[in-house]
Amino acid sequence: MNDGLEILPVRGIGDVTAGDDLAELITGAAPWLADGDVLVVTSKIVSKAEGRLVEVPADGPEREEARQRVLAGETARLVARRGNTTIVQTHHGFVMAAAGIDASNVDKTHLVLLPEDPDASARRLRADLRERGLDVAVVVSDTMGRAWRNGLTDVALGAAGIDALLDHRGQFDPYGNELSLTQMAVIDELSAAAELVKGKCDRVPVAVVRGYGRLTADDGPGAKVLVRDSAEDMFGSGTAEARAEGLRAAAALPELPHTGGRSLMDPPPAGPPAADPAAVTRALRTLGDLLVSNLRLDNGIRLTPARDSPAALIRTGAEAHRLRAALAAEGVHTTALTDDEGVTLYYGASA
Amino acid sequence: MNDGLEILPVRGIGDVTAGDDLAELITGAAPWLADGDVLVVTSKIVSKAEGRLVEVPADGPEREEARQRVLAGETARLVARRGNTTIVQTHHGFVMAAAGIDASNVDKTHLVLLPEDPDASARRLRADLRERGLDVAVVVSDTMGRAWRNGLTDVALGAAGIDALLDHRGQFDPYGNELSLTQMAVIDELSAAAELVKGKCDRVPVAVVRGYGRLTADDGPGAKVLVRDSAEDMFGSGTAEARAEGLRAAAALPELPHTGGRSLMDPPPAGPPAADPAAVTRALRTLGDLLVSNLRLDNGIRLTPARDSPAALIRTGAEAHRLRAALAAEGVHTTALTDDEGVTLYYGASA
Repeated sequence: MNDGLEILPVRGIGDVTAGDDLAELITGAAPWLADGDVLVVTSKIVSKAEGRLVEVPADGPEREEARQRVLAGETARLVARRGNTTIVQTHHGFVMAAAGIDASNVDKTHLVLLPEDPDASARRLRADLRERGLDVAVVVSDTMGRAWRNGLTDVALGAAGIDALLDHRGQFDPYGNELSLTQMAVIDELSAAAELVKGKCDRVPVAVVRGYGRLTADDGPGAKVLVRDSAEDMFGSGTAEARAEGLRAAAALPELPHTGGRSLMDPPPAGPPAADPAAVTRALRTLGDLLVSNLRLDNGIRLTPARDSPAALIRTGAEAHRLRAALAAEGVHTTALTDDEGVTLYYGASA
Repeated sequence: MNDGLEILPVRGIGDVTAGDDLAELITGAAPWLADGDVLVVTSKIVSKAEGRLVEVPADGPEREEARQRVLAGETARLVARRGNTTIVQTHHGFVMAAAGIDASNVDKTHLVLLPEDPDASARRLRADLRERGLDVAVVVSDTMGRAWRNGLTDVALGAAGIDALLDHRGQFDPYGNELSLTQMAVIDELSAAAELVKGKCDRVPVAVVRGYGRLTADDGPGAKVLVRDSAEDMFGSGTAEARAEGLRAAAALPELPHTGGRSLMDPPPAGPPAADPAAVTRALRTLGDLLVSNLRLDNGIRLTPARDSPAALIRTGAEAHRLRAALAAEGVHTTALTDDEGVTLYYGASA
């Protein structure tokens, strides 16, 4: 039964207000704190101590308007919206419903914002505790939803004195398989463990994890290393938002200006004629029967009216644009050139 | 210091093979197990005991081909793919990289699949332990990645004898604010806490959480209540996949058959003429300057060539389709009717 952990609630901290000394409050409530402990502090009391409150009307439409203004201020990027739920990326990089702005555990005329720099908050509290002779790690935690799974869990917004990630990469299991992808987000797991003893209405904003070991001598990289760069994130936008973005991208496929006498045999206007033939075939297949004639060229596709009427010419333009969207969905970008006989879609986007 | 939790590793379980009695192995390794404990069991040993292994070649392209076949069998739906990373929804509903198929902690000629029904696995183990006189809860856990955050955490695949969610809804904080959205995924937090003492190479596939309380008399709802219905999920598809889906949707906006003499003044062919004028304005604005003339009607938009040439007719078709994609991105669906003078986009999709 050695090497276990204890998760201990810190009771009796009471209400926290702007300017409060958290190190004082925590050591007062938990005189049993010891070197090597990991303190997991709910971001709410960090925010309150730091005065990260905004005054808002207690009710009515003015309250909602004020809340929307505050949300806009905390938002770096809208990620997804459905009904009343708005998921944004904050200026810190966290992806959270309503930017983590909270109206619970505060009087009705205030909203609580996230700490401005939760890693800095963790470092300050760690330094303050060290001044009192305590060598501990500090994790600032908050409650978040997740994709794909119901229910919320606590995760880390800030950390000091502990590595956010425990890296098993380069290690081998007992069968000799290299553990290639295993970086555990241990400060998130510590936050989750701490939440189990905190509860939501019990005024237990701090819990202590004892026995974890692995504290760092310096402050370490903080929790910011857990923020995934949105360009690298496969889920950087909501599904509906990304789908709408695809439709907008289709709408934004512009034509080049009218070329007058440009002929089919002229060289393509931009880029090398490169397209995966299988991708082109897939795109054509998704369209089903085209209403116009199409001819696959080495460097593009030529569309011409199936019959001789003004409506058939109009339809040729529409079909050419449908095909461009289908090709773009397959990663094949095109430049469209229209003449009086039809449209040529050259592979390669114009500059 | 009361009301805390202990997280205790169970060492000495050793290698698990098909047909092993997990209750026997666990009680043998942890004779100190007590009523009220929560056992968090790594799904890997559950899978092994249940014989959820597939034989594959030890290396070479045949291994990768076999792995792809196994992955296809475990996949209900592709969620996102980038490079070598494939995220799928499994038949259980879990969204996981490679369907949770694992090549670590097993010899090189086998892959380990997830348990077929992890809730049933948890119930069986709980019943087996109860036969030995132990009244515990069982959580079957596995390691998963998440959207938006680097690093992995352990979460619950199965559970018995414990509620997956701890519901704070309907409770009030000390300020009288109702906690409206707070359902904590406690079995995920218990899994995360347990992972902190397990490690990845240490042969500690089981940890015990002592002091949690809140065990249920019956098996309870299991972990399946944590699986979010993909139709309700704002992140049901990867961003790139959803964007491509939008492009395909644009390509799939078909024209109605040529109408011959249908005139602008005919009634619209389908659906009520309903469109948010602001949405229509936004769609037109995203297109910038149209190359053709457009006229907003009560029930649609009429597009006609800006000048009299075959190329201008072709362009009218392309511009009409661009506009349809832009309208669809704003949630305005249209039915296109082409005649010899132009195109009318009627609001309301055709049946």
